[in-house]
Amino acid sequence: MSQQNIEPLDVAAIRDEFPILEREFDGQQVVYLDNAATTQTPDAVVDAMSDYYRRYNSNVHRGIHHLSQEASIAYEEAHDRVADFINADGREEIIFTKNTTESENLIAYSWGLNELEPGDRVVLTEMEHHASLVTWQQVAKQTGADVEYIRVDDDGRLDMDHARELIDDDAAIVSAVHVSNTLGTVNPVSELADLAREHGALSIIDGAQAVPNRPVDVSEIGADFYAFSGHKMAGPTGIGVLYGKQELLEEMEPYLYGGGMIRKVTFDESTWGDLPWKFEPGTPPIAEAVGLEAAIDWLEEIGMDRIQAHEEEIARYAYEQLAAEGDVEIYGPEPGPDRGGLVSFNVDGVHAHDLASIMNDHTVAVRAGDHCTQPLHDKLGVPASTRASFYVYNTREEVDAMVEALDDARQLFS
Amino acid sequence: MSQQNIEPLDVAAIRDEFPILEREFDGQQVVYLDNAATTQTPDAVVDAMSDYYRRYNSNVHRGIHHLSQEASIAYEEAHDRVADFINADGREEIIFTKNTTESENLIAYSWGLNELEPGDRVVLTEMEHHASLVTWQQVAKQTGADVEYIRVDDDGRLDMDHARELIDDDAAIVSAVHVSNTLGTVNPVSELADLAREHGALSIIDGAQAVPNRPVDVSEIGADFYAFSGHKMAGPTGIGVLYGKQELLEEMEPYLYGGGMIRKVTFDESTWGDLPWKFEPGTPPIAEAVGLEAAIDWLEEIGMDRIQAHEEEIARYAYEQLAAEGDVEIYGPEPGPDRGGLVSFNVDGVHAHDLASIMNDHTVAVRAGDHCTQPLHDKLGVPASTRASFYVYNTREEVDAMVEALDDARQLFS
Repeated sequence: MSQQNIEPLDVAAIRDEFPILEREFDGQQVVYLDNAATTQTPDAVVDAMSDYYRRYNSNVHRGIHHLSQEASIAYEEAHDRVADFINADGREEIIFTKNTTESENLIAYSWGLNELEPGDRVVLTEMEHHASLVTWQQVAKQTGADVEYIRVDDDGRLDMDHARELIDDDAAIVSAVHVSNTLGTVNPVSELADLAREHGALSIIDGAQAVPNRPVDVSEIGADFYAFSGHKMAGPTGIGVLYGKQELLEEMEPYLYGGGMIRKVTFDESTWGDLPWKFEPGTPPIAEAVGLEAAIDWLEEIGMDRIQAHEEEIARYAYEQLAAEGDVEIYGPEPGPDRGGLVSFNVDGVHAHDLASIMNDHTVAVRAGDHCTQPLHDKLGVPASTRASFYVYNTREEVDAMVEALDDARQLFS
Repeated sequence: MSQQNIEPLDVAAIRDEFPILEREFDGQQVVYLDNAATTQTPDAVVDAMSDYYRRYNSNVHRGIHHLSQEASIAYEEAHDRVADFINADGREEIIFTKNTTESENLIAYSWGLNELEPGDRVVLTEMEHHASLVTWQQVAKQTGADVEYIRVDDDGRLDMDHARELIDDDAAIVSAVHVSNTLGTVNPVSELADLAREHGALSIIDGAQAVPNRPVDVSEIGADFYAFSGHKMAGPTGIGVLYGKQELLEEMEPYLYGGGMIRKVTFDESTWGDLPWKFEPGTPPIAEAVGLEAAIDWLEEIGMDRIQAHEEEIARYAYEQLAAEGDVEIYGPEPGPDRGGLVSFNVDGVHAHDLASIMNDHTVAVRAGDHCTQPLHDKLGVPASTRASFYVYNTREEVDAMVEALDDARQLFS
């Protein structure tokens, strides 16, 4: 995306909508660079949920009274809003789950356990998040399928030759992250989805690190499934999304059973209701759906292209500042069109957790650990990394604060 | 419970904490009698969640920075608070799910699918909610187990002779509602748990309609599992609870896989973390846990024994007012120690949905339908019933408003 034509964000005005960014610890204002773990929540989103509880809280699905009508309409329309946001065909393709992890597990249970056969190949990537990596490992174990991983090359990109090797007619599932939560790599998901389709495999994209940060068009990508979470996109905890192509979702059995997803129940058997409710048994995350819709309104008011440009600019600046230090190893591709808004790194002789701890002394909030990609860290040859991840409210000055903290870490630990 | 020694509630003061109860439609103030579907949320709970988002929103589990520490402590301590509230042994026994339905499904997947064998008997009751009825039907179908239902007698109570017949050494699971969401019956769950234990079966209690309304002590009940939801107990949507005995949970495999529940992951295999996190993969319902804790604080400040006494008094009044009408059929036991705070009924010649619609014209919010107990309604010989369910803020005057609306219904439909 060319940044020249995109009007920059008014970050100061945006920050006013996030009281948490004013928090101080020991007299120092927090520098929040842990956005890949969870983003902060603007007042508009918090207020939308409070308004729900204070004005029209009710259970949904065909309640006859006024409050239930209002809540039902809000809950159902939140599906339309999400469908519109990612360019799905309609609410039938949008299932609300509890988080991205449940979205991935839903496919594994409803499709994987029923359809995978011994000898089928499940193609993942070496940069998968545990949410899909562990899930497909387990489903493969139960069904006799094999799991293979598309190699990550030394620059942190997928080896697409290897991908073409693995995605042959034995492939049944191809599951990949859109943007790596560790390397920042933006994967060629449309190409992966095409490869899968050509060979009769289903494609699943984990978009938890993409939907919050860039325009995402699931119809253009062409994958069969696409998963993400509310709390990483300025929305609430307690809600995730699974997009699925309608004809696939129609064929799939539900994996959770209960009220609200039923057509007819007798003491002997049950039949299922319509999409998407078939996959949403029990009382769903109603307030959270209201919050997610408010988050989408808020993001679109700013503009996803501007958000992407801002994040890429901050991430590029962070990358360059860190790379200028002689003793910092940065993981993933160099700044460019296939790198998203986060930077994971290590400093020579300093453990990632110690570095994060020193940064916290400077009230710089970064994440240290394996970021739910242990096998990738094994491959990188490190137990952990420190990750700075950016969002719409972050500034260059915050990156500077992080880089300044490196000196303290060196003095203490090197 | 003797009501004489229990100080009555200051309902007017309580109502001040629920702005939604001031809502008017066509100039008439709402009368909210749909509490078995979802309860309203006091300001204290809404404010606790807003405070979370505005002050210490962060992802949990070992984040090093201040905000993550605050969020982690709050999230973990919410487990302790719930454990204390229902007298479990500790946070290891408290799993946060997305709703009661998921709690039931977790047992079905983690225990049922792995342990049930052909010929095993799953003992449910005829008054089960679809959340357990449909779930165990499906698990039985997959494992070759048989499902049998403890009969409900003409008074709406469980036939305990039939229970003793069904719960023999072939029984593997006994799953029952604590309080029926349709009949209002309070079941002898401790006796059912004892019977199950004597015959080597696991016991599961669906407490969705009990925990909000009465003191519940899971240690005293003695069941292996106990499930309930936040949104029915003055708390938020998006969170449910599964209590399970620690030794059982230790033995069980997780059913959802992902981050935060992992000890070690390689490209080949994975091992699981400690309780309760083993069963909480992905970003959990953090704000919702904060809200649930605030709801428990709020309920305990009032006192669960007083809440129970208030609801029983209102439900008794409603029962008596409705019974005094010649053409109303009420389902479930007469008012007494084994009847909870709801009344389901039908009026001769008026469909339940029409009745609810007329009541809505009077801004009385009741629920009409099968209340996720279709097979029980088949047994009752009606397609649906109208249910008025009460909570801490309801008054006799609200019951009067409901009963007055019956005349209009008769004039229009009889």
